[in-house]
This record gives sequence, structure tokens and C-alpha cells, in this order.
Amino acid sequence: MTGLIHIYTGEGKGKTTAAVGLTIRAIGNGFKVLFVQFIKENFSGEISILSKFPELIDIYKCGTGFVYEEKKINQREKIKSCIEELKIKIKAKKYDMIVFDELAVAINLGLISKDDTENFLSLINKNTEIIITGRGAPQWLIDKADLVTEMKNVKHYFEKGISARKGIEY
Amino acid sequence: MTGLIHIYTGEGKGKTTAAVGLTIRAIGNGFKVLFVQFIKENFSGEISILSKFPELIDIYKCGTGFVYEEKKINQREKIKSCIEELKIKIKAKKYDMIVFDELAVAINLGLISKDDTENFLSLINKNTEIIITGRGAPQWLIDKADLVTEMKNVKHYFEKGISARKGIEY
Repeated sequence: MTGLIHIYTGEGKGKTTAAVGLTIRAIGNGFKVLFVQFIKENFSGEISILSKFPELIDIYKCGTGFVYEEKKINQREKIKSCIEELKIKIKAKKYDMIVFDELAVAINLGLISKDDTENFLSLINKNTEIIITGRGAPQWLIDKADLVTEMKNVKHYFEKGISARKGIEY
Repeated sequence: MTGLIHIYTGEGKGKTTAAVGLTIRAIGNGFKVLFVQFIKENFSGEISILSKFPELIDIYKCGTGFVYEEKKINQREKIKSCIEELKIKIKAKKYDMIVFDELAVAINLGLISKDDTENFLSLINKNTEIIITGRGAPQWLIDKADLVTEMKNVKHYFEKGISARKGIEY
């Protein structure tokens, strides 16, 4: 397999869940997946299931939490050190797929620069499929990608005042 | 939980995988899920993983195969009998979530009527979250839904001549 870059971006629901679904499909075919979560700090239901396949899925969490302007410097440092650890990880083990959940958000908010992202992506094995999610993917990242789906919010129950529910949103 | 209706439609990649991701998140929270696949006949990698959780996920396949005009009558009959079986299933067991993968396609291609769909959906427990995927969701279905995401195809490697790959598309 030649690895391609996918981006799932936009305001609509379905970005992280699509990445989880791709992970499940990949391991269903015996692929090895590295699942990286940026930004999110809290435990989501999907992680407890992905953890049940340690021989096929490695999970790496780089949670900075909600991005406040006054905390951005610390959050940038956090992501920088995560990237350094990830470089070691991807050098040590051959993954068929790597998911970078919410990476587009981290880039969009300036927590990781274009240069650092490009440098990091260039180190990944050419046969590894790369899945990037998050709203606000910048144009230069879209230009680099082989597949881009924009999850367009046509209608969302949040607009009706229904808040995030356990088992559905996390 | 009050059950809501989600639709993941559009031409872009990520509809079925989002439904699989929602299923994984749901069972990660102990929810019981019925995962129904319409249209698709072949085995996908994700099904082998979903099958590993028989205490939480029931899988029901209603594969008609690719929809040719000359086979539509048989395919309509097939879906009609699937719906009858499903009515018995949902009456016998309380699901927290039901995924109808590719149902929008079946509706869009006239394999199941608006009346039959509405009648069937009205029989589902009001606390069950309903997830419908497939391109071409009709407006009346969108009107009924609480959440609609259109997976917009911004860029797809199929356009570059790369065909469906095991582990990524199935």
C-alpha cells in the first residue's frame, strides 16, 4: 500500500468518529495503527474500545485541553514535546496508518507551525496512511492531502439546545 | 437519553466510517447497538471487529448488491423482508442506538418508499439514537432528522485513478 493523506475537516459532526471508523476498518484487515489525540483531555468512550486491541493499536494522547489565549505558550510547548516523542515512536515501529485526531485544530490555533508539521509529516514512512481530523484545516494542508472531506453542518441538535451526551459526543 | 436521528450523507468519504466510529463510542459507554447494513454485500474489515462485541452489537446484513435497474424489483422485495425481520428484532430487544448504513441510498434509489421508511422509523423506541448513512438523503428525511452532516467531497484520490483499497475503503 502507498500511504495517502486524508483530511476530515469542517464544522459538522463526524470527523473524529470517521477516523475511529477508519481505524476499526484498518485493524479489521490486520493493519497496525497509531492513534494520536491532540487537544482533547478527557476520556472518550471510543478510547476504551480501541484500547482492547493493543497488538494492533497504539494510543498516544497529547491533550492540551481547551485552548485559551493565555495558555497558548504552554500548550505550544506541550505539543512540541509530544511531536518529539512521536518522532521516536514512528521511527521505532512501522505503522500502516496514523491518525492525528484534532491536528488541524492545533495547526489552526497556531499551537504547531506549518514548518514543524511539514517536517514531522515528511519523517513518516511513505507507505503509512495518514488521517488528520479537525475543523479549520489550512489551505496548505489541504493542498498536501490526497483526500479531503469537509463535514458540512447542515443541521445540528446543539442549535436546539441539546448539549453533548455521553456515548454520542464523547 | 432521548433518541435523536442523525444523517450522514453527501458524496465525500467518511459516512459509514463515522457510523462505525459512533458505534464504537456508544459501546465504549456500554450502549447496545444494532448495526444494519443495506446494499453492501461484501465483507468489510470493520464488521470483523464489530463482531467481536456480540454482547453489545447485533449486526444485521441486508445486502442487495449493486443496484441495477433490471434487478430493482427483487431488491425491493429483499429490503421489504429485511424490514419485517428488523421490526421483530427491535420489538424483542431494546437498543440504545441503531445504525442504518446506506439506508439513504436505498431510499434514494426507490428500494424502500417514504411511507414504509416513516412507518418503520415510527416503531423504533423513542430513546433509541438512530444513525442513517448514504449519499442522496431526500429532503423529507433531512426534515425529520435532528442532525445532518453532509460529507462534502473537496478532493478524492479516486479522481487521481487510485481505486478502493482493502483496509481503507473496505
